[in-house]
Amino acid sequence: MKISERVNSMQESPIRKLLSYSDDAKSRGIKVYHLNIGQPDIPTPNYIYDAIKNYSERVLAYGPSQGLKVARETVADYLNGLGYGVNPNEVFITTGGSEAIIFAMMAVADPGDEIIIPEPFYTNYNGFASMAGLKVVPLLTKVETGFHLPDEKEFEKLITSKTRAILVCTPNNPTGTIFTKDEMEMVVNIAKKHKIFVLSDEVYREFVFDNKKHTSVLEVEGSEENSIMLDSISKRFSACGARIGYLVTKNRNALNGILKLGQARLCPPTIEQIGMIEGYKNMKSFMKEMITEYQKRRDVVYENLKNVEGVFTRKPEGAFYVVVKLPVDDADNFAKWMLTDFEVDGKTVMVAPANGFYASPDKGKDEVRIAYVLNTVELEDAIKILSLGIKEYNKRKR
Amino acid sequence: MKISERVNSMQESPIRKLLSYSDDAKSRGIKVYHLNIGQPDIPTPNYIYDAIKNYSERVLAYGPSQGLKVARETVADYLNGLGYGVNPNEVFITTGGSEAIIFAMMAVADPGDEIIIPEPFYTNYNGFASMAGLKVVPLLTKVETGFHLPDEKEFEKLITSKTRAILVCTPNNPTGTIFTKDEMEMVVNIAKKHKIFVLSDEVYREFVFDNKKHTSVLEVEGSEENSIMLDSISKRFSACGARIGYLVTKNRNALNGILKLGQARLCPPTIEQIGMIEGYKNMKSFMKEMITEYQKRRDVVYENLKNVEGVFTRKPEGAFYVVVKLPVDDADNFAKWMLTDFEVDGKTVMVAPANGFYASPDKGKDEVRIAYVLNTVELEDAIKILSLGIKEYNKRKR
Repeated sequence: MKISERVNSMQESPIRKLLSYSDDAKSRGIKVYHLNIGQPDIPTPNYIYDAIKNYSERVLAYGPSQGLKVARETVADYLNGLGYGVNPNEVFITTGGSEAIIFAMMAVADPGDEIIIPEPFYTNYNGFASMAGLKVVPLLTKVETGFHLPDEKEFEKLITSKTRAILVCTPNNPTGTIFTKDEMEMVVNIAKKHKIFVLSDEVYREFVFDNKKHTSVLEVEGSEENSIMLDSISKRFSACGARIGYLVTKNRNALNGILKLGQARLCPPTIEQIGMIEGYKNMKSFMKEMITEYQKRRDVVYENLKNVEGVFTRKPEGAFYVVVKLPVDDADNFAKWMLTDFEVDGKTVMVAPANGFYASPDKGKDEVRIAYVLNTVELEDAIKILSLGIKEYNKRKR
Repeated sequence: MKISERVNSMQESPIRKLLSYSDDAKSRGIKVYHLNIGQPDIPTPNYIYDAIKNYSERVLAYGPSQGLKVARETVADYLNGLGYGVNPNEVFITTGGSEAIIFAMMAVADPGDEIIIPEPFYTNYNGFASMAGLKVVPLLTKVETGFHLPDEKEFEKLITSKTRAILVCTPNNPTGTIFTKDEMEMVVNIAKKHKIFVLSDEVYREFVFDNKKHTSVLEVEGSEENSIMLDSISKRFSACGARIGYLVTKNRNALNGILKLGQARLCPPTIEQIGMIEGYKNMKSFMKEMITEYQKRRDVVYENLKNVEGVFTRKPEGAFYVVVKLPVDDADNFAKWMLTDFEVDGKTVMVAPANGFYASPDKGKDEVRIAYVLNTVELEDAIKILSLGIKEYNKRKR
């Protein structure tokens, strides 16, 4: 029985593929620090849970395909508070940020079309592109330049008659880089020049450190017809299991197309939309506290890593990830070895090999992504263990 | 700005496209009986809501991509109670039945491949096929033969080198027909002969009347490698807004492919899976009461329609829909007219023109789908108004 080439050619998740080794380590009684996955440990705010508990409709019925009106109004209010000028009718609620990305890809491009994505990138973009039948064309960014974007010329080298969009993520998963206003303007200008879309994944919008500023594609002047902003409450409210995201676009044709996709799948989950509304009502104090905590974590990771011999990294500007170059020949093998052969006082560390975040097969082989989603005490311990692991791994080989 | 041909070519939902006319009618103070959409009025059981309210994890975290283990075990227990012999590892929890269908299509077929679907069919299959880039090849079934399947020869006429699957829905939306054991065996045999899949949408499994018997594809001997069963809790527990469905397959390659698709979108909603578990624990008494109610409704619809001059319909065997042939030239126009120009004592009826349930453009033009999702008193009134409407509509034209 033949199955589809579409799924046959999909890569396994680099974030999840080492899972069996970490399960084995745990079954040997070893504590594994999970720096491999972006699952925050921050408690989901009580007012979100309370809203879910207070849901009292007699029938848990289908909602509107574009999301509840009050949910779309809440999102517009939140974005307008940031000065973006969004109408609730330009907001489309999705089942997680994942569906926002899938729908945007499907609405702007047909099977065989191309989408340019700066690499390293969030590995699930590959999966979404496979679902939509799109070819991912990677544009290399480098740890040495803090994973900022190359200039317009480098983009233009990749644009063909099949290019339908550029997908950016800022603050970036996996690099922690925040694209500057200049970079966002450059991307929009390229898109306008070539009549293609910018899909801008901004789920880490608030996760910015050192008073840096996030620039939304919605803020870039003249971006209206070309941009689709992608967002999610998963990280913002530590509510990954709620599966609520949304997209925002002022392009009526794109939005109408997305509405058709949305009507086919009927609606996003109803109760969690109610939860989201409470999240946005109460976000200010929660957010301040959370970002302060993440900045401390970022500092712990950076300060403890930067002086390790052979390690190269830049201080991440946002999100809660960093891509680090390690003095190892094969980060995939190293990550596995940490789980199968290494421990310090019964503890070890799981990281995500960065190769899986690149579309170019030869890139990132000596890099890993670290998600700093543990408290500072655990993080400090984890980075210490990681450093010792690097030394031991290289000793072992000689 | 060009958008994709994929969304441009998607038809508008025939169930939803008359919505603005019904909104207008309501704004004129007219009560509209909605027989156009499969949104049950049955209250969602309290124990499902209670389970949702009692969810008390500190972090609403990502769950497993294939669904919570306890949710998969619950589904397997339920199906094994029906004698199907299912292992929890063969169950994959999805975001609604919608995602189960999309994932199954994407896993068994590539863009440009074909899928045979008996028509009339659930109109959103078109949307899912567009998402997956598949061509829907319709196989005509007729009101005169109770929308049962034609013989093997008719299927084989449609099979090409690009055919990857046959999609059946039993009990059927929109026709209310239950495919017999012989019909299900025939479909499986065709699939085995041509090395293609059977996708079997069984979300209305319990909605069977007059002691008829539903046959699952999972019951058909020798179907293991070729079948994917699609299911949802939306109708079974009157929980359409929960967005929980699942698929079941014993084909390891298909399941692995679906797991990759599932990993990309991370996970289905967590809290509603907990709700589903309580639903299955308590389903027996709830289900009996609900089916008794639906059978009464079915009788009201059938008994009140069958004697209307020029109307042709068979008594539906299951689900909560029926496709009815009306003595009108254009059911689309008639359905609209009922909303814009007709009322009885300030009330009118909204039905779904059946043309949208056919892939063949010329079919079903004098048919409508009726969803009997109102109580019997309202239904009786609605069918009376519909009958008067048919007479008036035809008088008006002469």
